[in-house]
Amino acid sequence: MLVSGRRRLLTALLQAQKWPFQPSRDMRLVQFQAPHLVGPHLGLETGNGGGVINLNAFDPTLPKTMTQFLEQGEATLSVARRALAAQLPVLPRSEVTFLAPVTRPDKVVCVGMNYADHCKEQNVPVPKEPIIFSKFASSIVGPYDEVVLPPESQEVDWEAELAVVIGKKGKHIKATDAMAHVAGFTVAHDVSARDWQMRRNGKQWLLGKTFDTFCPLGPALVTKDSVADPHNLKICCRVNGEVVQSSNTNQMVFKTEDLIAWVSQFVTFYPGDVILTGTPPGVGVFRKPPVFLKKGDEVQCEIEELGVIINKVV
Amino acid sequence: MLVSGRRRLLTALLQAQKWPFQPSRDMRLVQFQAPHLVGPHLGLETGNGGGVINLNAFDPTLPKTMTQFLEQGEATLSVARRALAAQLPVLPRSEVTFLAPVTRPDKVVCVGMNYADHCKEQNVPVPKEPIIFSKFASSIVGPYDEVVLPPESQEVDWEAELAVVIGKKGKHIKATDAMAHVAGFTVAHDVSARDWQMRRNGKQWLLGKTFDTFCPLGPALVTKDSVADPHNLKICCRVNGEVVQSSNTNQMVFKTEDLIAWVSQFVTFYPGDVILTGTPPGVGVFRKPPVFLKKGDEVQCEIEELGVIINKVV
Repeated sequence: MLVSGRRRLLTALLQAQKWPFQPSRDMRLVQFQAPHLVGPHLGLETGNGGGVINLNAFDPTLPKTMTQFLEQGEATLSVARRALAAQLPVLPRSEVTFLAPVTRPDKVVCVGMNYADHCKEQNVPVPKEPIIFSKFASSIVGPYDEVVLPPESQEVDWEAELAVVIGKKGKHIKATDAMAHVAGFTVAHDVSARDWQMRRNGKQWLLGKTFDTFCPLGPALVTKDSVADPHNLKICCRVNGEVVQSSNTNQMVFKTEDLIAWVSQFVTFYPGDVILTGTPPGVGVFRKPPVFLKKGDEVQCEIEELGVIINKVV
Repeated sequence: MLVSGRRRLLTALLQAQKWPFQPSRDMRLVQFQAPHLVGPHLGLETGNGGGVINLNAFDPTLPKTMTQFLEQGEATLSVARRALAAQLPVLPRSEVTFLAPVTRPDKVVCVGMNYADHCKEQNVPVPKEPIIFSKFASSIVGPYDEVVLPPESQEVDWEAELAVVIGKKGKHIKATDAMAHVAGFTVAHDVSARDWQMRRNGKQWLLGKTFDTFCPLGPALVTKDSVADPHNLKICCRVNGEVVQSSNTNQMVFKTEDLIAWVSQFVTFYPGDVILTGTPPGVGVFRKPPVFLKKGDEVQCEIEELGVIINKVV
């Protein structure tokens, strides 16, 4: 159980760079910008909440986008591993702007009703097959970016989710081979306009899910070998410091392997594709009375080992 | 009314390059490959069914993908106009492979029930608002590529559609400004697995619409100034030569301008984004008894002034 007040303090301290820097051997890949650099760069977050190593400075032949980095597979990953092992300059967190770890992927695949406890909250049976919908890549924003409340919706809700990032192209992938296609994991906020999702647009969920800024991601793509067990991680959402969702990814109905096997029956996965694996209970729309986000709210979505994303609602 | 037999003959002749070459001042942008060229190139189709001018040979500084070409706006369009006016070598159609005019766009936006006569066929009221769903970009294939029948579906159906290609970034675009954001038009086949669209996946249409190869596009992006009136074009689908859909884009409930204004309330449009504007009546699922595509079928989707795409079902 994450303790809200303590974590908020910790987060604030980490953000302010007053927490002592803890080096890490975990590979936490980021996309970032800095005032002295032109355009987006690839980097390594030095532990959860740490500073950033500029991978493009370490090896100028590396691509500058995560998708291109992932497309090159083992060749670029081994460079990142060498960078991790070296003593390299670390940019303080206060000097960089974190972008989403993946931008403009071919697809953002989303899964509905994928936590047993979230189904119970809705009073619907646990699905026998994954329910798949999507967001447009244009909805992706960075881990600390603002979520813009659209005037077109009065019912914008939160959903903390574990996101899987694909590392290797594939179609008709077997569940037993699926982890070979995973680059790693990150934190996602599947912001959802319930009025558009549930009552408008012929009940096709797309529009309610895909407003600009409705997919904060990050801060890092934590590679799969850096995560002990992606299906046993505490997952939590806080709104203005109050815990509104608190569960564990062990509650997922369809795990990463099942989802990749299922969706790859339909589509070819490409490096950089993102899968949002569904949200635990505690969303606003099923509260009595329902609660929705309003201007000025701050939403924190946190997953153990992966990190926390903090998005102000404006 | 297109006369099926005559058009088939015409198409066959054009494909075989036995039809006398008719030069055209229309701008018909294509992406193509040829045995003597490395990778995809940008070109101009010299009239509907004509050969191809290699734009990258005319100006080696031009980008090689349509999305990048469109991102540069007037600068690259003026180069293409100069190429049109010059006497340039034309690659015979038999020597090139046509790719989809746009590949890997940020989004493929689709519109449901957008022909008054198609609503009537389904016995549903004409929608008061556009109904928006999507395909993943990974479903896009070229204008003469094969459509692969997935073993996961028994009910694969045809849908000829007018596709709009976005040329200029925008959000909250007014209908009166919308045409300024359009690069041009092309022909799309919105292949649809009815079992997955209508009865599976929690009735979210995405999976039934987005199998790999379910979005043939092309052959050319015909720029908007080359089309007299995009909302007064004959549109037709033939399966094995038999006309199964025959209507006119003047039957569209929401026109291009309305659709851009509507969707841009939710999302930012980027150059290269594609909007499939809905299909006229005559689809297989509403026939009595229903008819679906089978291996060996050949589907031709044709739109007046734009061209014809021909996709074999395998």
